[in-house]
Amino acid sequence: MIQFESIDSPLNINLCSFSTLLSHDPLSVSVGFSIIGGLITCKLVPEFKESFIKAKLTGKDLAKDDKEPPIPECMGVICATVYLVCMFFFIPFPFMEWFSGKGKISQSEEFHAPTFPHHKLGEFLAAMLSLQSMTFLGFADDIFDIRWRHKLFLPAIASIPILMVYYVNFGVTHIVVPIPLRFIFGRIIDLGFLYYVYMSMMAIFCTNSINILAGINGVEIGQSLVIACSIAINDFLFLNDADPAVEAHLFSLYFILPFIGVSFGLIIYNWYPSEVFVGDTYCYFAGMTFAVVGILSHFSKTVLLFFIPQIFNFIYSCPQLFRLVDCPRHRLPRFNPSENKLEYSRVKIQKPLKKPASFVLDLFELLRLVKVDKGETSIEVNNFTLMNLLLLKIGPLHERTLAILVVVIQILASCLSFYIRYHLVHFFYEVI
Amino acid sequence: MIQFESIDSPLNINLCSFSTLLSHDPLSVSVGFSIIGGLITCKLVPEFKESFIKAKLTGKDLAKDDKEPPIPECMGVICATVYLVCMFFFIPFPFMEWFSGKGKISQSEEFHAPTFPHHKLGEFLAAMLSLQSMTFLGFADDIFDIRWRHKLFLPAIASIPILMVYYVNFGVTHIVVPIPLRFIFGRIIDLGFLYYVYMSMMAIFCTNSINILAGINGVEIGQSLVIACSIAINDFLFLNDADPAVEAHLFSLYFILPFIGVSFGLIIYNWYPSEVFVGDTYCYFAGMTFAVVGILSHFSKTVLLFFIPQIFNFIYSCPQLFRLVDCPRHRLPRFNPSENKLEYSRVKIQKPLKKPASFVLDLFELLRLVKVDKGETSIEVNNFTLMNLLLLKIGPLHERTLAILVVVIQILASCLSFYIRYHLVHFFYEVI
Repeated sequence: MIQFESIDSPLNINLCSFSTLLSHDPLSVSVGFSIIGGLITCKLVPEFKESFIKAKLTGKDLAKDDKEPPIPECMGVICATVYLVCMFFFIPFPFMEWFSGKGKISQSEEFHAPTFPHHKLGEFLAAMLSLQSMTFLGFADDIFDIRWRHKLFLPAIASIPILMVYYVNFGVTHIVVPIPLRFIFGRIIDLGFLYYVYMSMMAIFCTNSINILAGINGVEIGQSLVIACSIAINDFLFLNDADPAVEAHLFSLYFILPFIGVSFGLIIYNWYPSEVFVGDTYCYFAGMTFAVVGILSHFSKTVLLFFIPQIFNFIYSCPQLFRLVDCPRHRLPRFNPSENKLEYSRVKIQKPLKKPASFVLDLFELLRLVKVDKGETSIEVNNFTLMNLLLLKIGPLHERTLAILVVVIQILASCLSFYIRYHLVHFFYEVI
Repeated sequence: MIQFESIDSPLNINLCSFSTLLSHDPLSVSVGFSIIGGLITCKLVPEFKESFIKAKLTGKDLAKDDKEPPIPECMGVICATVYLVCMFFFIPFPFMEWFSGKGKISQSEEFHAPTFPHHKLGEFLAAMLSLQSMTFLGFADDIFDIRWRHKLFLPAIASIPILMVYYVNFGVTHIVVPIPLRFIFGRIIDLGFLYYVYMSMMAIFCTNSINILAGINGVEIGQSLVIACSIAINDFLFLNDADPAVEAHLFSLYFILPFIGVSFGLIIYNWYPSEVFVGDTYCYFAGMTFAVVGILSHFSKTVLLFFIPQIFNFIYSCPQLFRLVDCPRHRLPRFNPSENKLEYSRVKIQKPLKKPASFVLDLFELLRLVKVDKGETSIEVNNFTLMNLLLLKIGPLHERTLAILVVVIQILASCLSFYIRYHLVHFFYEVI
């Protein structure tokens, strides 16, 4: 049986969805857990500040005066732990109807589970396991500063449980080819093993791409919240009993709603001026949540659409990430204390330039993506990140303004994604 | 259907078991992973020493000269992480036969899984999730020094996934009453919800009881290795295709063997004189491994039998743990540098004694479990731990000798447990 990402029109955005929402008991419970999770995070973060400072888990705010006291770092671990505990308590709820003997399994699933949907429970457990692994690894990274080349592959290891469950529950490795490419590949390609590679790559991408669009107050959680809300809105569009994908989108909501809750609980303290930093832990935790939901709910392409700013930032960063151009330890915008604003930061490259560096610089200059100042023995160029690019184009900005700008870009990108997903999709796929 | 811990005779300890062993492919793979896990731990621990010292995760060896440099603390996290990664890669192997289409499900399981044993995969995932949660919480405890009353309940939260899977896969809450008590309770009691409370209590007990029989070089891993080997030996006794419990004991072996592997990899550096400390992380990780295996393989009573020294130490410690008698921060034996030996440590209690304290002291003195020195305004008594008791009875010992002694006691206790489990059991249960 060939399954693929279900493609539907947005006509279902109506009150019907919301009445259906209320009829799904576990969903109401999930909303409850999300609110409770947010409140607990909100309460625990200030309580744990002292412990973090005592444990020397602190950082310096690079975009503030030197005199500021050190700020507790990697508080994302609190929010992730609250999330995981909430999910532990939530796991039984979607299965309540089976416990009370009222559970019914849809016809297509009958062959799986005549008495209890063990395969669905497996999905929950695997998703939790992957999320927890990634949180754990993120926390370890915050503490031990794991080497770049090692940490790149950690998400791949953390995604093993979901890939395993994907294999036994779905095992679908076919993709439907976009219409314009069908004259080459035909309608369906079986990627086989490569599909699993694609899914691990997705986990690697989601976690690391949030981690490199980071560094100023509130921006990590800001972008994650926009992505999470976009996923949740997309899920609500499918919450119609008649929709075959309703189960998958409920699964997604169960994971995304508490994520939104705990993230709100944390951003209160992380927004400008930050009282706490979120650390790599949060970025990994957030990225993995999106990857897990995308993979196990079969809309990985839609999730990736919500990552447009991250994809741009990643491609733009590649020359530095892959060391074609020198990459300093921090590529954050530079703080100008006299104006209390952030300016784009620059990197000095010694002449003579190597060929790839010179090619990249020429190309990016042609595309007006960089500003190159040529000196006698070296050249200076802005660091290749979205935030530096914004500061280059717009001029120096206050830290809060830059964070708001990034969030606004993320929101606009989400609007574009919805447009692509529900309108332009006609040019690429048949809409069922 | 009423299931209970299967009670079998030890007659199967024969070559047949070992030939069966080799015929179980996943078991050979598990042995392979255990060896690899041990080697990797052995390689990583010295490599990470510097990172731990840099991250200020260090401790002072209280039973050494003051001049010794600080020692990397909570290295158990390395061994637990290696274990978890090994298990991630191992998970598919027990299911290989289903992937190749050759899998067969035993008749009793047919109603569960006509196409794939999703319920078994669920057990693996839940076990991993509980183990990982406990490791994560242990690590957090090492870093943040979580309050005693909070950390007592962490294992209960970490055990939710296995309880959930226990509920849906087995749901058995009946216990068979020992013969001498049947005239009161009848042959079978249904504990209902209390059975789940019992299982969480077991997780709390296993993790914390190892954590309180700790503090001198090598003793945490030493006792855990003896318990793990005892569980493994007990599992091998059932590895006979005819035995109905073979699946459960294979499950247990898959979790215990890699644990033995990584623990050996770590004890090399933790045995006297320690180059690294294992931290609460290791104690929690070890305890949870035993609890998970006991619960999901249905031999929790047998696992508890292997905890005799820990049970004794716990009961003996109760007056201090529950603050009937003053409890100092550390109850470790006291180091005497002039003789390079450990002596029992003492606690001073101000007079007048409260009634419960006075009762406990009188009772323990009667049982010759304490040495009380009465002064005018206060009395001094040895701290209530197994190690202090040994030093009280035998006299001062070298640290290595004391660690060996604890391990020997653990081995003797295991021999006693096997005797109880396979001989005295006739007095309590019908042997099938």
